[in-house]
Amino acid sequence: MVGGARAAARCDVLGRAPYSEFEHGLYRGYLTPAHHTTLDLVGAWMVEAGMHVDLDPAANLLGRYEGQNPGAPALVIGSHLDSVRDGGRYDGPLGVLLGIECVAALNDQQRRLPFAIEVYGFGDEEGSRFPAAMLTSRAVAGTLDGDLARIADADGVSLAAALASFKTDYDVVTASTPTRRLDLKTFEAARRSPGDIVGYLEAHIEQGPVLEAEGLALGIVTGIAAQLRYAVTLRGAAGHAGTSSMPLRRDALAGAAEMVLAVEQVARRDASDLVATVGKFEAAPGAANVIAGEVRFSIDIRAGEAARRDRAAKAIEEKLELLASQRGLVLDLALVHDLPASPCDAALMQLLESAMAEAGQPLRRLVSGAGHDAMVMSALCPAAMLFIRCKDGVSHNPAEHVEPGDADVALEVMLGFIERLNRKVLGESLADRT
Amino acid sequence: MVGGARAAARCDVLGRAPYSEFEHGLYRGYLTPAHHTTLDLVGAWMVEAGMHVDLDPAANLLGRYEGQNPGAPALVIGSHLDSVRDGGRYDGPLGVLLGIECVAALNDQQRRLPFAIEVYGFGDEEGSRFPAAMLTSRAVAGTLDGDLARIADADGVSLAAALASFKTDYDVVTASTPTRRLDLKTFEAARRSPGDIVGYLEAHIEQGPVLEAEGLALGIVTGIAAQLRYAVTLRGAAGHAGTSSMPLRRDALAGAAEMVLAVEQVARRDASDLVATVGKFEAAPGAANVIAGEVRFSIDIRAGEAARRDRAAKAIEEKLELLASQRGLVLDLALVHDLPASPCDAALMQLLESAMAEAGQPLRRLVSGAGHDAMVMSALCPAAMLFIRCKDGVSHNPAEHVEPGDADVALEVMLGFIERLNRKVLGESLADRT
Repeated sequence: MVGGARAAARCDVLGRAPYSEFEHGLYRGYLTPAHHTTLDLVGAWMVEAGMHVDLDPAANLLGRYEGQNPGAPALVIGSHLDSVRDGGRYDGPLGVLLGIECVAALNDQQRRLPFAIEVYGFGDEEGSRFPAAMLTSRAVAGTLDGDLARIADADGVSLAAALASFKTDYDVVTASTPTRRLDLKTFEAARRSPGDIVGYLEAHIEQGPVLEAEGLALGIVTGIAAQLRYAVTLRGAAGHAGTSSMPLRRDALAGAAEMVLAVEQVARRDASDLVATVGKFEAAPGAANVIAGEVRFSIDIRAGEAARRDRAAKAIEEKLELLASQRGLVLDLALVHDLPASPCDAALMQLLESAMAEAGQPLRRLVSGAGHDAMVMSALCPAAMLFIRCKDGVSHNPAEHVEPGDADVALEVMLGFIERLNRKVLGESLADRT
Repeated sequence: MVGGARAAARCDVLGRAPYSEFEHGLYRGYLTPAHHTTLDLVGAWMVEAGMHVDLDPAANLLGRYEGQNPGAPALVIGSHLDSVRDGGRYDGPLGVLLGIECVAALNDQQRRLPFAIEVYGFGDEEGSRFPAAMLTSRAVAGTLDGDLARIADADGVSLAAALASFKTDYDVVTASTPTRRLDLKTFEAARRSPGDIVGYLEAHIEQGPVLEAEGLALGIVTGIAAQLRYAVTLRGAAGHAGTSSMPLRRDALAGAAEMVLAVEQVARRDASDLVATVGKFEAAPGAANVIAGEVRFSIDIRAGEAARRDRAAKAIEEKLELLASQRGLVLDLALVHDLPASPCDAALMQLLESAMAEAGQPLRRLVSGAGHDAMVMSALCPAAMLFIRCKDGVSHNPAEHVEPGDADVALEVMLGFIERLNRKVLGESLADRT
């Protein structure tokens, strides 16, 4: 077996012990023993594909396939190796393994390009062990914030201690001499210079149902959605369910129900990539014979463009205020997150689109509602992202599934992308000479 | 101070230690030390009002004011002496103390009637200590079910042990010889014979906002509402809040929100005494970035007539099934309670109404949405019930409040009721003679 189907099959191999902390089901946390064994195996696959393999100071696995000239800037292909608890096998590793397949295909043909290809297996994207997500791509992009020394896992093990006790079989590349030890002090030395990188490409399962519903294997991500998150508290009057007549009630739960539907309606009416969700909803006191006096709920709003998102948020805010006043309820609406959109690079998207067309794939652009390493890397270099259909839109779940045939098509498009990038770089260097 | 205002003031006295288990706030559980001190004080007030006082085998305080002939059947006036934790001062005791005031008024005039008056201070109505409500009025009515020997409080103290260790200063009246000890074996000897009782009258705070909203001091209870309780489970599909487009969602929370509003709308449209409430509502997994895959909620429906209640329940069931099918959700609707209505006695209600009219009180009939000892006693004898306005409809709360003036009016109506019952009994006995 070769190509995309092999990449998918290798995800299945990584879905069990010793590559999972669980015997049944998958959990691969950052800097756990399962992470260690996974680095060994994936690193071996990288070597087999013709790459030189190191670990970077943030415990990212880094394979490099040299270009025609040693030290050339690299196209980086990457995704993450960690998983959530009881997660799926393809979320992350599939993108890493497809990167390895790209290199394997070039290596089979003994082809070297004017740029190197590097494959990153990021150590942490999910916040799989520490309460901070995308720690390791942020180290690469140089966008870490906060005090790393204060980060500790649920058992109280600090990031510093976890790094120090992680025995690696690879050289750890730092600015100074190589070592076989990880150290929080050098964590940020994982940072790369923009001049070293041509661009970033990530293939990832969609984690949503859109491609499947439209019968498409692939989609081109136009960007990571801009997101707003609200925490809402709605106060009415608690009362006895038997003794409070209907007209005299100030039922916070019924009021909140109207608000849930208002949120949904605003998003539906937009009929775009905009989504809005009430996912958390808690009624107090929460007894069958007591009218709820208080409800707390979340609102999550995302769209490809911040302007669209903000128009919807304004419409939702106005509607909620109206609904609260109609029922004599007290509304408290607190904005808790405001994340800007991260658009993908237009030039790289064009290369992907052209490769899609050549592979006979209908063109489908979509916004990613979830965050990915590509969003982080876009701060460092031009980034592009390819979504692969997943069964029933299910992810973060053992039932997560990708068809091997879809992985094959994804690989074909990624290779087409590399071919086009090659022509573009050659064209540009020709242009430079004239 | 005399009369209704004194009864209300005495409730305030009973609202503190040593009549409460708490120093600040009120908790008077069945067979607790606070219950014991309360029996001593309320019993003393009964004696002062001219009654003979005993404890019955269920630890109900029982004062008797003889009629013209010793051993005559009695009008029973009662309510409960126990409270919920952090409860209000009037819920229960006010009805007992108003009963004592009725007797005190007759005793002041040295009047004896063709029937005796008995005042019951029931030991347990709230389920204040053991996980079983109205234990002691059910003992009197002879409607206990289940195995009393298995009942224990949260600390594992059995009802049997609590009874055995309760030192009483009163004679405990059983069928055999009086004793000063309580015993689970004789608990059911609290049962009374219908022939001993003319009727049952209970005054109680409304525990709802209706009377206050209409500017009325009193209301006549037509019955305890018939009640249905459902446990509803609604299943959709969990999904990522960012990656699932609006048209493809099967959002259990949004579906449940529609159902909450449907329940409310059916009850509002009925524009009667019918009430319907969703008070418990739990969404899973309950995270801001995850579309809810499952929601569990309660539906509580009550109305004076079972037929009205059942029509509403049918309309709600049909609407919920329609809403579930429109959204592709799986609905599971389980009936968990079906309690029949307990109508008050028509003849006794007429006497109350006539007394209300004489007292210049507008006539307002209402259904009691909550259960009361009167509901239990109606299995034994004709029962009637008077509701007294409470501030803001608040009960089971330290803020519970009754205006002394309202208690005065309640006493006036209760005395008018006794007067009318007297005339009725005299008329009947005259009729017997002709």
